[in-house]
Amino acid sequence: MRAAIFRNGDFVVDTIADPTPGEGQVLVKTVCCGICGTDLHAAKHTQQFVERSRRTGGRLPMDATRDVVFGHEFCCEIVEHGTGTEKRLKPGTLVCSMPMTISGTTVQGIGYSNDVAGGFAQYMPLAERLLLEVPNGLPADKAALTEPIAVGWHAVQNARLAADDVPLVIGCGPVGLSVIAGLTIRNVHPIIAADFSPARRALALRMGADVVIDPAATSPYQSWHDVATPAGYDGSRYAQLFGSGPKQRPAVIFECVGVPGVIQQIIDGAPAGARIVVVGVCMETDRFEPFFGIIKQINLQFVLAYTGEEFAASLRNIAEGKVDVTPLITGHVGLEGVKGAFTDLASPEQHAKIMVQPWE
Amino acid sequence: MRAAIFRNGDFVVDTIADPTPGEGQVLVKTVCCGICGTDLHAAKHTQQFVERSRRTGGRLPMDATRDVVFGHEFCCEIVEHGTGTEKRLKPGTLVCSMPMTISGTTVQGIGYSNDVAGGFAQYMPLAERLLLEVPNGLPADKAALTEPIAVGWHAVQNARLAADDVPLVIGCGPVGLSVIAGLTIRNVHPIIAADFSPARRALALRMGADVVIDPAATSPYQSWHDVATPAGYDGSRYAQLFGSGPKQRPAVIFECVGVPGVIQQIIDGAPAGARIVVVGVCMETDRFEPFFGIIKQINLQFVLAYTGEEFAASLRNIAEGKVDVTPLITGHVGLEGVKGAFTDLASPEQHAKIMVQPWE
Repeated sequence: MRAAIFRNGDFVVDTIADPTPGEGQVLVKTVCCGICGTDLHAAKHTQQFVERSRRTGGRLPMDATRDVVFGHEFCCEIVEHGTGTEKRLKPGTLVCSMPMTISGTTVQGIGYSNDVAGGFAQYMPLAERLLLEVPNGLPADKAALTEPIAVGWHAVQNARLAADDVPLVIGCGPVGLSVIAGLTIRNVHPIIAADFSPARRALALRMGADVVIDPAATSPYQSWHDVATPAGYDGSRYAQLFGSGPKQRPAVIFECVGVPGVIQQIIDGAPAGARIVVVGVCMETDRFEPFFGIIKQINLQFVLAYTGEEFAASLRNIAEGKVDVTPLITGHVGLEGVKGAFTDLASPEQHAKIMVQPWE
Repeated sequence: MRAAIFRNGDFVVDTIADPTPGEGQVLVKTVCCGICGTDLHAAKHTQQFVERSRRTGGRLPMDATRDVVFGHEFCCEIVEHGTGTEKRLKPGTLVCSMPMTISGTTVQGIGYSNDVAGGFAQYMPLAERLLLEVPNGLPADKAALTEPIAVGWHAVQNARLAADDVPLVIGCGPVGLSVIAGLTIRNVHPIIAADFSPARRALALRMGADVVIDPAATSPYQSWHDVATPAGYDGSRYAQLFGSGPKQRPAVIFECVGVPGVIQQIIDGAPAGARIVVVGVCMETDRFEPFFGIIKQINLQFVLAYTGEEFAASLRNIAEGKVDVTPLITGHVGLEGVKGAFTDLASPEQHAKIMVQPWE
């Protein structure tokens, strides 16, 4: 099969061996696969990615000296069933799966593995038990966004949302937009979202944000304060301890940037008692000031990925129109276009998600 | 009145003006006042303390160029009532109060103020509305421990404890010992506690810890794992995703050290899904690795102080014998002994709490 291979720090399109479905596995054709910010990071800061991944105990055991085929946001078509499968879905069925496969009782991640090619290849060996049929005639490129939409849904599910929360989303790349989609489904409003990019702020509005902020012009925290503070609110120490006046609404702040310094910026800007949900994936060492977290009694919830239920719910939410992912898809490329797409995605004005179609 | 004054970076005993109780205030004699770890920090790293405090927006507005009288863990005796008081407690009554006073609607902290002398002085002007009568004939030195015991109680109240939690307390100074006391009241067992000091490990056992660990000899996280992991537990990815076998008990880890690096050490050692409650007060810039927090979906809850209800409950818990603070009190000094006590407290083998008695 053909694949866009990450080899010696560069992308090349080459032919590699077709995968053979093992026990309980199904061979699928990759119809469409999104490019994720973590893919960009792994391609640009490969040594750091490999070193950090190794220190996590092998969840992403990538060896940069060997070929690797990225791609973990995919929608596929069933080709044939391996042994020990129930064959509950017919060949030709459009399916999604969490980006992992299972062989016996061995779970292997898909997307950063040297052994199982990811969605930037024409075929993959998926686990039958993880396959979800794409419902409602949803097109493959939209179904492929199940994975990033599940990331935002998981973050929102783990934010311990209260009825009166005013959410603030810092960063409106694909992660932030996915969080906004999740907040919209949960009907938590008003949603305030901040990004330096005009194009991303426009996307944030289309995904359901109520107020968008350019941090170069306005403090997102002041904007939050303006929205969350009722008339007659008294912020003095005396009123806070003994007052019976109106209260400020609670803050839940989603960190969707993932670069060093942002967590401390949020701690500095956040009101006392804020919950901060860290969804952005910062792979560098960061600095922070515990004392300011303490003074404000901040809660920091780090989140990762999603459960199987959250992944399945996200596919349903897209197929039922509860999330419209149309604005997220800003380009399509074939395998030959992967290298250029990785370059193009560096500019937030141009793109949100570029979808790779290995058969086009 | 006489006071142990922090002046130009040193302690001197000198005479200063007696306070006059204002509207709603009560003049009290300070019978006993504990020395807190934050006092040690403020005395040793004064510039850092002042700078950090200033950046928090004036919660601890200390000016190091002026005299300051520390002391915020006190038990007092009522001397006389100011104007506008209800006089609900008679002169001679033993009382505790949160370390603040109120004049009109102005709240002033006690302990790091240049304007209101703290508990290392003979008199203080307390707010009548904050006074709690010491019940059950509890001696003043034990009642003075209400404040540090409330710190641990607040941390435990904000840990979102679940029935099956296995708590791990990192650091068994006064803060860690107070957390152990709180966990004991909540009957969350087994309590695992770690400290390099044999004396502090012995104190931890007396306060209610079930297992004590010397981190120089044994990993606290391995010890936690040994206790929290049931027979037949399968930690493989497959079992975690699809297994129905026994689960590991949840981890709640209390950071009670407050020096840079400890939060990341805990993130490194913690099991996935751990809640970390940061009770130790680290006033320096710290470094951490967000990626490891993300991979493990760690929750970090920073906590500070206590509510009025938690403070009152702590006094009751001590007076009713639910917390025996006897082991914590390792020395008593008069005002002349404050300077030496600050030196002696640097050694964890010698002391936990030294109580200052300004009239002895």
